[in-house]
Amino acid sequence: MNLAMIDDGMLPMADLDKAYLDRGLYFGDGVYEVLRSYDGKLFALEEHLARFERSLKEIWIDGVNIADIRAKIEMAFKESGYANAKFYFHITRGSEIRNHLPSKGLKPNFFMTVESLAEDTKSKQFGVPVATYPDLRWKRCDIKSLNLLPNIMARIAVAPKGAYEAILVNDANEITEGAGSAFFAIDGKEKAIITRPLGAEILPSITRSIVMQIAKNAGLATVEKTLTPQQAAACSELFLAVTTKDIVPITQFDGQPVGNGQVGPLCKKLIAEFAAYARK
Amino acid sequence: MNLAMIDDGMLPMADLDKAYLDRGLYFGDGVYEVLRSYDGKLFALEEHLARFERSLKEIWIDGVNIADIRAKIEMAFKESGYANAKFYFHITRGSEIRNHLPSKGLKPNFFMTVESLAEDTKSKQFGVPVATYPDLRWKRCDIKSLNLLPNIMARIAVAPKGAYEAILVNDANEITEGAGSAFFAIDGKEKAIITRPLGAEILPSITRSIVMQIAKNAGLATVEKTLTPQQAAACSELFLAVTTKDIVPITQFDGQPVGNGQVGPLCKKLIAEFAAYARK
Repeated sequence: MNLAMIDDGMLPMADLDKAYLDRGLYFGDGVYEVLRSYDGKLFALEEHLARFERSLKEIWIDGVNIADIRAKIEMAFKESGYANAKFYFHITRGSEIRNHLPSKGLKPNFFMTVESLAEDTKSKQFGVPVATYPDLRWKRCDIKSLNLLPNIMARIAVAPKGAYEAILVNDANEITEGAGSAFFAIDGKEKAIITRPLGAEILPSITRSIVMQIAKNAGLATVEKTLTPQQAAACSELFLAVTTKDIVPITQFDGQPVGNGQVGPLCKKLIAEFAAYARK
Repeated sequence: MNLAMIDDGMLPMADLDKAYLDRGLYFGDGVYEVLRSYDGKLFALEEHLARFERSLKEIWIDGVNIADIRAKIEMAFKESGYANAKFYFHITRGSEIRNHLPSKGLKPNFFMTVESLAEDTKSKQFGVPVATYPDLRWKRCDIKSLNLLPNIMARIAVAPKGAYEAILVNDANEITEGAGSAFFAIDGKEKAIITRPLGAEILPSITRSIVMQIAKNAGLATVEKTLTPQQAAACSELFLAVTTKDIVPITQFDGQPVGNGQVGPLCKKLIAEFAAYARK
């Protein structure tokens, strides 16, 4: 008889819950999104749904109704009763006996969690330390897929140094992005924010795109170019952009203070602009 | 209240089965093995366990007792009653609320399936077509991890061409390996099998290592070097090496016949040698 074991328990394979036959688990064969609300309002919902739809398309998962996903998010938001909520959702290609090539007509699996989100005021006020780590990821980092082991390894590797985030550096000694965030530098003299151009090497971060939209309100130009870790370390200010925390100032880079080691004035301006934009 | 949705069903997040909180599902944060038995005997068990132990170590999953895994495999093998069985097993870093950085002391999850394995005599007799596809994978393909989306995409992409396997080609126009197999060429004149040297770009395939051990019994030398698709296509014979089917002759490469389009004599010799070795 075909059998399965879950930890120490044995059961007929036919009795397995479909969660154990999920191609998301076997292969990371799925894509995800994280979004949040600010004070009772879903933030950048359409942008997240558009990116999700693109991710699905890029890995050839068909038959997902985006309007249905939107309705589920809205329903769960209401049901949660949270004003500030964090949403995680993914779709995998479906559940079946493990085989690289999926069956035709397999039904995708949807999964979502909604959690209360507390503002991380401390990291905004004092900034965070980051450390660089090699970018070991695949060649399609523009797809928000469930293949995140290199991101996890980077986070685990830098944590003992006290780093809040790993800044990924490719073989050309260029920063790509954070393991779970977009990466920005600020040139204080030129009054410009600098970030890597979009491409297959980085996620088209929605927070990144919003930061670039609001930069002009803070009197800052936007420059899309690659930076080496050495160039970044020499910048007056650095910050991360991430959905759940929007702008997080970086005050230490590979053990060295960024600028004077305090959250800089332009970062503070951007944080204020983002807060106003998110709650407008 | 923290909520979850599974397809159309909503439930309190606290009621989620741990399968839905598995880091294997969220991140592919785990490693796996596939092994088989031949005629009532587990094949290359120690080699698979050693590779599994190495994979765990490389991604820093601690506290797994390999003797315990061995005992589980042996117990499930006996329980299944199969003479020819296929085993799949994985360990993930554990289940908890999604967060990139795992909690300290998180307990790893073990999962295994045991299925009856029927010999694929047809592919051995007639060979299979393969097609090349870009190698989009990460930089640590020597780790047998659950991050397999690029492998899946390659399989899906070549399937409409009738290809049984995707042969992955890197940016340097070198063949790395199959999406789910090792790749070998045979130089009929030199009486040698050719395969890529081990390294971070390929899995240290156990079937590959066994093929190299038995090659001399078939009167063949072994050469470890990289091949371009053009060089491979010009070889007299080609084959795949994969745990569940050992040696699978390739009779068509990117739409062109390999050699005379039939399974070649040296491949047949190797198949016979492998069959004898596996059942000795």
